[in-house]
Amino acid sequence: MKNTFGNHISVTLFGESHGSAIGAVLDGIAPGIDVNEAFIAEILSRRRPVGAISTARQEADNFSIVSGVFNGKTTGTPICILIPNTDTRSGDYSQMRYAARPSHADYTAQCKYHGFQDYRGGGHFSGRLTAALCAAGAICLSALQAKGIQIGTHIHQIGAVCDRTFEDFSADIAKLNRLDFAVLDDNKKEAMLAEITSAKAEGDSVGGILETAVTGLPAGLGEPWFDTVEGLLSHAMFSIPAIKGVEFGAGFGLGSMRGSQANDPFYAENGEIKTKTNHAGGINGGITNGMPVVFRCAVRPTPTLAREQETVNLQTGENTTLAAKGRHDPCIVHRARIVVDCMTAITLCDILAGRYGVDWL
Amino acid sequence: MKNTFGNHISVTLFGESHGSAIGAVLDGIAPGIDVNEAFIAEILSRRRPVGAISTARQEADNFSIVSGVFNGKTTGTPICILIPNTDTRSGDYSQMRYAARPSHADYTAQCKYHGFQDYRGGGHFSGRLTAALCAAGAICLSALQAKGIQIGTHIHQIGAVCDRTFEDFSADIAKLNRLDFAVLDDNKKEAMLAEITSAKAEGDSVGGILETAVTGLPAGLGEPWFDTVEGLLSHAMFSIPAIKGVEFGAGFGLGSMRGSQANDPFYAENGEIKTKTNHAGGINGGITNGMPVVFRCAVRPTPTLAREQETVNLQTGENTTLAAKGRHDPCIVHRARIVVDCMTAITLCDILAGRYGVDWL
Amino acid sequence: MKNTFGNHISVTLFGESHGSAIGAVLDGIAPGIDVNEAFIAEILSRRRPVGAISTARQEADNFSIVSGVFNGKTTGTPICILIPNTDTRSGDYSQMRYAARPSHADYTAQCKYHGFQDYRGGGHFSGRLTAALCAAGAICLSALQAKGIQIGTHIHQIGAVCDRTFEDFSADIAKLNRLDFAVLDDNKKEAMLAEITSAKAEGDSVGGILETAVTGLPAGLGEPWFDTVEGLLSHAMFSIPAIKGVEFGAGFGLGSMRGSQANDPFYAENGEIKTKTNHAGGINGGITNGMPVVFRCAVRPTPTLAREQETVNLQTGENTTLAAKGRHDPCIVHRARIVVDCMTAITLCDILAGRYGVDWL
Amino acid sequence: MKNTFGNHISVTLFGESHGSAIGAVLDGIAPGIDVNEAFIAEILSRRRPVGAISTARQEADNFSIVSGVFNGKTTGTPICILIPNTDTRSGDYSQMRYAARPSHADYTAQCKYHGFQDYRGGGHFSGRLTAALCAAGAICLSALQAKGIQIGTHIHQIGAVCDRTFEDFSADIAKLNRLDFAVLDDNKKEAMLAEITSAKAEGDSVGGILETAVTGLPAGLGEPWFDTVEGLLSHAMFSIPAIKGVEFGAGFGLGSMRGSQANDPFYAENGEIKTKTNHAGGINGGITNGMPVVFRCAVRPTPTLAREQETVNLQTGENTTLAAKGRHDPCIVHRARIVVDCMTAITLCDILAGRYGVDWL
Repeated sequence: MKNTFGNHISVTLFGESHGSAIGAVLDGIAPGIDVNEAFIAEILSRRRPVGAISTARQEADNFSIVSGVFNGKTTGTPICILIPNTDTRSGDYSQMRYAARPSHADYTAQCKYHGFQDYRGGGHFSGRLTAALCAAGAICLSALQAKGIQIGTHIHQIGAVCDRTFEDFSADIAKLNRLDFAVLDDNKKEAMLAEITSAKAEGDSVGGILETAVTGLPAGLGEPWFDTVEGLLSHAMFSIPAIKGVEFGAGFGLGSMRGSQANDPFYAENGEIKTKTNHAGGINGGITNGMPVVFRCAVRPTPTLAREQETVNLQTGENTTLAAKGRHDPCIVHRARIVVDCMTAITLCDILAGRYGVDWL
Repeated sequence: MKNTFGNHISVTLFGESHGSAIGAVLDGIAPGIDVNEAFIAEILSRRRPVGAISTARQEADNFSIVSGVFNGKTTGTPICILIPNTDTRSGDYSQMRYAARPSHADYTAQCKYHGFQDYRGGGHFSGRLTAALCAAGAICLSALQAKGIQIGTHIHQIGAVCDRTFEDFSADIAKLNRLDFAVLDDNKKEAMLAEITSAKAEGDSVGGILETAVTGLPAGLGEPWFDTVEGLLSHAMFSIPAIKGVEFGAGFGLGSMRGSQANDPFYAENGEIKTKTNHAGGINGGITNGMPVVFRCAVRPTPTLAREQETVNLQTGENTTLAAKGRHDPCIVHRARIVVDCMTAITLCDILAGRYGVDWL
Repeated sequence: MKNTFGNHISVTLFGESHGSAIGAVLDGIAPGIDVNEAFIAEILSRRRPVGAISTARQEADNFSIVSGVFNGKTTGTPICILIPNTDTRSGDYSQMRYAARPSHADYTAQCKYHGFQDYRGGGHFSGRLTAALCAAGAICLSALQAKGIQIGTHIHQIGAVCDRTFEDFSADIAKLNRLDFAVLDDNKKEAMLAEITSAKAEGDSVGGILETAVTGLPAGLGEPWFDTVEGLLSHAMFSIPAIKGVEFGAGFGLGSMRGSQANDPFYAENGEIKTKTNHAGGINGGITNGMPVVFRCAVRPTPTLAREQETVNLQTGENTTLAAKGRHDPCIVHRARIVVDCMTAITLCDILAGRYGVDWL
Repeated sequence: MKNTFGNHISVTLFGESHGSAIGAVLDGIAPGIDVNEAFIAEILSRRRPVGAISTARQEADNFSIVSGVFNGKTTGTPICILIPNTDTRSGDYSQMRYAARPSHADYTAQCKYHGFQDYRGGGHFSGRLTAALCAAGAICLSALQAKGIQIGTHIHQIGAVCDRTFEDFSADIAKLNRLDFAVLDDNKKEAMLAEITSAKAEGDSVGGILETAVTGLPAGLGEPWFDTVEGLLSHAMFSIPAIKGVEFGAGFGLGSMRGSQANDPFYAENGEIKTKTNHAGGINGGITNGMPVVFRCAVRPTPTLAREQETVNLQTGENTTLAAKGRHDPCIVHRARIVVDCMTAITLCDILAGRYGVDWL
């Protein structure tokens, strides 16, 4: 379905980086859900670039809700959210009109759209569109919170620096949702920032890993085949630009484990069934088991670099080099984390609405 | 869409491990494609357990094509393939009727289906259903081969033993498609088998990692958002039981890389645009760039163990232990590789039919 | 989605008239619903040809449930139902291999499938496949009945003979569900049969109109745009071979009415809101209003005729004539009514599961 | 999929009658298609109320294309079109806040959205949203025209006055596309207008029937089951407010016909296969046969009347009466015809893109 995601609750994304606006349509949300514009603005602010470690492009992200909200609550009809583009400098991109940035979508967009794509600032491929995803996702996040479902993502790794993993899920998620730079171990923040500023100083960029936890999900969500919770969440995560890997629970670590290490023993406590460990990331056979859903996303280094790279001129077909001008991020890991939260919220709302019906949320 | 996957070409999966038959309906395939029953049988044989390292359950996998094939060619209408279940011993599972196997779907099936699920042999969750996926996938595999698109998967890792990675894609894929135990470095086969037999001897199981390459795909496939090639393939891969991680190109390794290392420089050669490295796994911005698509899947150790594990009796709600009887695999990595190939083929046929129309294949 | 219909509950249809079997996969049905094989057989018997007014092809319709039912109840996983083809005489169709029957799908199948279609007995286009729809629909019908939702269809017209319309919905629907030849006014049955036998005697066929009522549906089902109840039901009805028109409530009669005649005044009675008339057929703005849903389907005369017709030889491209041999129905209106009931049931289950969740039924 | 329609090319509709704007997202359109804003404006002008026979609400319909168009051509990415609401008088609707208009969506919206719907001016149910459909449809219409596919709709009937049917499809469609009040027989226009003004004078409204023809479609489009051309087009047509019946070719007239009358004999002429008559409306077995596709839509009289009607107060639950103030149409048949053209165009683009691939158009 191209630029639409979700079966019961869906989001449709539109816009280009240097067009008049970007936006999203969120459909299928139950009527009567509170829409708190201040909360949406807060979520958007988490995604916005800040300080020396980010792009100099500053977008106010002054969103407007065009439809689907009446008297501060959802009506049950499609919610269109528009975010105007204001701080565009298309001139910066003229050098890249034909010199395809390595590992960026410039060349593949040309192959797919035969040269008709809006190439300015990455066009429809721009990470800027995730602002619209976040605005839509914020509505889903607060709907889930009202049902006791919490989502939190931390920067598990940037370059060579690693954060600690989740320990106390409740407290950790609460902490993350107060932070702009989402690290669980406060001591790691500076080292991570140093990785970013060092990369930037060298005209380079750096990648990382995000780790997400979801608590409060009922057991029994997901399908045994195809629409497994892992399948749906990974489908959603790989929609986020720069994400190149998704693993649940112990993930790739399971490849060198024995079953006796990897299995999560069940135990009963006060009439509830839980597992002693959570190497499965809260999902057995594609279906939630009531434990926290935990997954990690690998985020590649931003491809646009100030330093010179080899590439091809798409117009002449000749080999050339490119040292990108323009404003770009040396690292997007810290900005991507709220996008991961929002896409997770949209996906879970979709799964919950499918299972329990439209009005459940 | 629950047990159906795909937008243009779709597969619908049905059946239970100990029911009369399992099967799949493959829809959307162009008319006039050769259906070679011997090739389907060969693909199924790759999935079948062999020797000491596998379950003792031996299914002949005598599939029958119920519809959609006429005079040896596809008609363009839905292809239903049935595979009868013959070697079932439901008695083996009576002990597990209520003692949920840790990390298996026994408990989550109970949560989802409220006790109405067919619990025998894992029911609808059984890996046995992948035989039907393989039968459907075999038709897609041969359709792709006829268009010059080759798919091959090798056992990248079992336990502590690692295979080499792809070097010469053409030769490596051709080699893999001749092997029952798909290892590129012949010297690693014995060590891998030893990992499995050692796990088995201890009543245990072992996990691994599969690596897949696809060559011959045109550049320009996939969508910028949501239906990225990574999103669609990962959605498909996580449908395969036991897969807990999917990464493309350098994947999680990108988390500690600089952009200057991770980026794949473009170069032009004989009018073709290629990349010098392939850390992006053939996909930029969600869209194929014409280089081989490369990804890895983490396969968890089989949860069913002969050794004793702690668990809960779902009927009484009391803590108990379980040492599984019955016939089960100490490792499914080597069997899962053909399932990965087949789900990859189905997914790619879907993408190609969407892009180029029904009759393209 | 080609041969699959439904978003939350879906049916996938496969098979050819002269293949080994036809069948359907019904997915998304809640676990724990009673599956009464005798009821399915009864529904199938309603569709089966009887006596002088029908084709001589007699199929036992000995269905088998391959999956998704365990201990007499749905498991919640896909239900595959197979119906073998037994009484096939492909030889009858050899004359029509190239002489396309006027108004039948022979020519359009050729255009769509480029000659690879199974042409025997109409292949995948055969009305025979509606047997599989009925088997799947029977499960939906009984699930709806258990929730107090009743569906009934009568033969509103055959040729020049008209039945009365619905009066007492409850009693009328109950009566229809006991009849093989579903006419509300007993006096009209003979005249309708006479229309059919007269057509048959002349080597001809005759059309008709079916009228359907559904009671017990809650108000508030359906969507304001696209997935209106009318849109979904008509989509389903036009899937049934030979149906060429669908109208709701006063339908085409509304074209010559004034608003003051057409509008259905609301009134309150015992706390319930009802309408005094039902020209809207129970649907306002695409959404159910709690009154009976009423619609009519136009059924074209069967195209296959014993009398000579002009046509073209698809192989030579030359004009020719065709007087069809083989066994065919002079009228399918009376047989189509149960197919209408079943497709209505499938569609309503889909709508209800989307609104109230998987487990509602 | 709620407010989204289409599998390959899709339209998503959002907005409320008295919100800040309405709009649509059209996705899946090939890159490189000319977007002529003047043509879109012309299509919108066909839908706009004119003169004494329409509502006094005058909307300029100053649409803006937010995304997906660059340098006058489609980019291949989603096209979002916004149309601001300017001439809103919400006060007119305060009397109807609780007095549900008979046969309007006021009551069913209440049932579906539990009172959270935007009730002003019909909210999301308003016919006003068809302006956004028309803007999206205009792009599809011109894409089809560039491929030689022509669509035209005439007012077949208003009240007691009937137009002639199609005779020379090419000339008739060309004529219709020049007219604001689309009647083929010029002599009938005045009588139709008289029907409307007479209804209006009596505080009443009047219904009608639209007839549509499509020429230039290739044979072989559509699916044998479910996604028949009739099923897809009727699904689309019933999305248009006020449409209560859809019939193809001879439609309901087939109910009293013999097969020998109804069948369309094939004949070959200059290597092309055609039919002598077109009672099937260009569709056999759900699939186009290359003849013009012809269908009719029944349009109910507008439910909002100036004259007094019986109804119920939704707040108090008491019986009451309502004589609607506000600006409303005494007839929407003449305005609905361009909406029918546009929804037809969107649906056909969807079918064509599915068959021939994204880039075909």
